[in-house]
Amino acid sequence: MAGQSDISFARGAPSLDIIAVDELKAAADRAFSSDPKGAFSYGTAAGYAPLLEWIAGRHEVPEEQVIATNGSMQADAFLFDHLVQPGDTVVIEAPTYDRTLLALQKLGAELLAIPVEVDGLEVDALERALSSGARPKLAHVIPNFHNPAGVTLSLDKRRRLIELATEHDFVVFEDDPYAELRFEGEPLPTMLSLDDSDSVVYASSFSKTVCPGIRVGYLAGPQALIKDIRKTATETYISPSMVSQSIVAEFCRSGAIESSISTVKEALHERRDRTAEALERELGDDAGFVKPEGGYFMWVDLPDGTDGDALEMTARQHGVIFVKGTDFLLEGGESSLRIAYSGVTPAEIDDGVGRLAEAFRELAGARA
Amino acid sequence: MAGQSDISFARGAPSLDIIAVDELKAAADRAFSSDPKGAFSYGTAAGYAPLLEWIAGRHEVPEEQVIATNGSMQADAFLFDHLVQPGDTVVIEAPTYDRTLLALQKLGAELLAIPVEVDGLEVDALERALSSGARPKLAHVIPNFHNPAGVTLSLDKRRRLIELATEHDFVVFEDDPYAELRFEGEPLPTMLSLDDSDSVVYASSFSKTVCPGIRVGYLAGPQALIKDIRKTATETYISPSMVSQSIVAEFCRSGAIESSISTVKEALHERRDRTAEALERELGDDAGFVKPEGGYFMWVDLPDGTDGDALEMTARQHGVIFVKGTDFLLEGGESSLRIAYSGVTPAEIDDGVGRLAEAFRELAGARA
Repeated sequence: MAGQSDISFARGAPSLDIIAVDELKAAADRAFSSDPKGAFSYGTAAGYAPLLEWIAGRHEVPEEQVIATNGSMQADAFLFDHLVQPGDTVVIEAPTYDRTLLALQKLGAELLAIPVEVDGLEVDALERALSSGARPKLAHVIPNFHNPAGVTLSLDKRRRLIELATEHDFVVFEDDPYAELRFEGEPLPTMLSLDDSDSVVYASSFSKTVCPGIRVGYLAGPQALIKDIRKTATETYISPSMVSQSIVAEFCRSGAIESSISTVKEALHERRDRTAEALERELGDDAGFVKPEGGYFMWVDLPDGTDGDALEMTARQHGVIFVKGTDFLLEGGESSLRIAYSGVTPAEIDDGVGRLAEAFRELAGARA
Repeated sequence: MAGQSDISFARGAPSLDIIAVDELKAAADRAFSSDPKGAFSYGTAAGYAPLLEWIAGRHEVPEEQVIATNGSMQADAFLFDHLVQPGDTVVIEAPTYDRTLLALQKLGAELLAIPVEVDGLEVDALERALSSGARPKLAHVIPNFHNPAGVTLSLDKRRRLIELATEHDFVVFEDDPYAELRFEGEPLPTMLSLDDSDSVVYASSFSKTVCPGIRVGYLAGPQALIKDIRKTATETYISPSMVSQSIVAEFCRSGAIESSISTVKEALHERRDRTAEALERELGDDAGFVKPEGGYFMWVDLPDGTDGDALEMTARQHGVIFVKGTDFLLEGGESSLRIAYSGVTPAEIDDGVGRLAEAFRELAGARA
C-alpha cells in the first residue's frame, strides 16, 4: 500500500471545504473597521461585549450569566477547577469525551460512570446510584449527538436529570457543542432553558459552526458561578482573544453563521449517510451502530472478542485511522471504535471504511 | 469639576492611536488568504508553526524551546502551575507586577521579596538570602523598564543572577514584555541568551508591539520544561487562537512589526518626557522618580508620610486615576504610586499631572 495516504476518522474536526473562509475574512475586515478599539485593546475576562450580547440573546439569559473563553475546553477547565476538589464525585457518561475524562482524572475526581443508551444517559442507573448514597458535585452530560456515542438525550430524561440535580444538589454540566448540527428530527430544548433552580451550567463553542482555529467557546449558567469564573479568568489571562471574539461576533450578527451552519449540516448529513451505507455494505451485521441525528461522530460496536488494539494497528497498516473505544471509557469498549466523519470527503469515507473492513477481516481470519 | 472626564494613568495599555490598525487588517487578510487551513483549523498547543519559527529565530533558540500562548499571563500561569507547589519559596521583586503577586499568592507560594534598585533587583540582597538558607524554586524578574518600577537590570546583575540560579538550582523567570520599547541607551542581552545552564525561562508578549486584544504571548526555555508545558496546554485548551497567531505571524514576517515598534517607541518616548517634565514642573522636589529608558511606567515616590490611599481618593475627585504603590508590594509603598503613560496623550499628561499635584497639595494642606 506504499504511496497511499492515510484516511483519518480520528479527529473530530471539520474539513477546510466546509469552513466559510471568505465570510470569515469579510467578518474580520468589518469587525476591525467598525470597532478597532474593541478588537485590538485589552478586553474584560467576560469576553467581547457584542458577542456576549449575541450569546445571551440566543439562550435568552442575561449577559451577566455568560462568559466567552478561548475555546470551550478552557471554559470546562475553569468550571472544573471551580467546582471539583480532589475526591469529589463527578458523574460522567460511559462512554464520554476522552479529554473530559482526562481533565477530571487529573483533578483527582472520583468518577461515577453511568452508561449511555440509545436515548442518552441511563438516568435510571444514575437514580439508583443516588439512592445508594452517591453524592456527586457535578454530572457531565453531552446531550446532543454525543461524542463519542452519537446518541441524543431524550426530553423526558433532560427533565428527570434536572429534577435529580435539584433534589440531590449537584450541578448538571450540559456540554453541547454540536446542538446546531441537527440533520433530522426536532430540536430538543436545552436543559439550561428547562432549569429554574440554577442547577445547569451550559457550555458550547463556535468550533463547529464558525471554525475551530478561532478558539471561541462559552459558558452560560447561574450568575454567581459565572461571576466567580470571570474572576478566575481575569487572574489567568486578563481577557480572551478580543480579535477572535470580535470576528465571531460580526460573523454571528451578520447572519453568516446561519449559512455556515447550513453548509456544515448539509455536508455532514451526506457524510453520515455515506458512513452508515459504507459500514452496512462493508461490514454488515458485524458493525452495530446508532445512526446519529446530527453532529460529527458514530460509535461502532464490532462483535464481542474483537481486539480493538490489534484492529487499530492492523487498520493503520491498511491506511485508516480511528480512535479505539477504550479511550472513552474507564473500563470496557475493547470491541468498539469511534468514527469521526466530519473531516473526510464522501469518497474518502468509502475508501476508509473499505480499508477498515479489510483490516477487520484480516484479524478475524487470523483468529479463526 | 462636572463634565471633565477622568484621565487615567492606571492601566498599562497602549492608546488606540499607536496601534497599527490598517496593518493589522492587511495582515489578517493575507494570513487568512495564504493559509486558511492553518488559521481556521485546530492547531497544536505549541502554537502556530510560522509564528514559533519567527520567535525562535528572534531568540536564536530551536522551535522546540518555544510555546506561544493566549497572552503571556496564560504562559505565566502554566509555568507557575508547573514549577510552584504550595509552600515553595519564590523570589519576587519589590515592587513587582501586581498580577504576578496575586497569582503566586493564590498558588500558596512563600514569597521572598527582594528590593529593586536603580539598576534592577538588588542581587546582593538575594545572595545574602541564599547564604542564609533560602531555597527558592523560582525567581521572577522583569529585566527591562520594570513594571512598576521603571528600572532596567544591569548587565552585571543579569550575569550574577544566572550564576546564583545555577549554583542554587532555581529557575530565573525573565518576564520581558517591554524589551523592544527602548527609547535610549544600548539594549542589553537577555538572560535567556546569556544562560548556558538551562536556568532561564523567558516570557514575552505581542501586546506591546502588535496589540493587547490579540492575546499572543510566549515562553522560551529549556526544552524539557517547554515540552511539559505544551502537554498542559493541550489538556487545557487543545490549541491557542490560531486566528490571532496567524495574524501576528504575518504581521511579524512582513516587517509591519518593526514600523509598529517605531511608532509605539516614538509616542511613548514623547509621553515619558512629557510626564517627567510635568512631574518636575508641578511637584518639583516632592516627586522622586527614575526616568525609565523605555516601556510604559514611571514609579513616583512622594514625601514620606504621604497617605497613598487618601491621595488616590482625592485624586479621583480631581479626575485623575493611578495605581497605588501598595498594590505592587507585600509591605510598604504607602507614599508611592505608579504612573502608566502608555494610554494618554501629551495634553492629557499635562492635565493629569496637574490634577495629581492639586490633589497632593490639597492633602498636604489638610495635614499641615
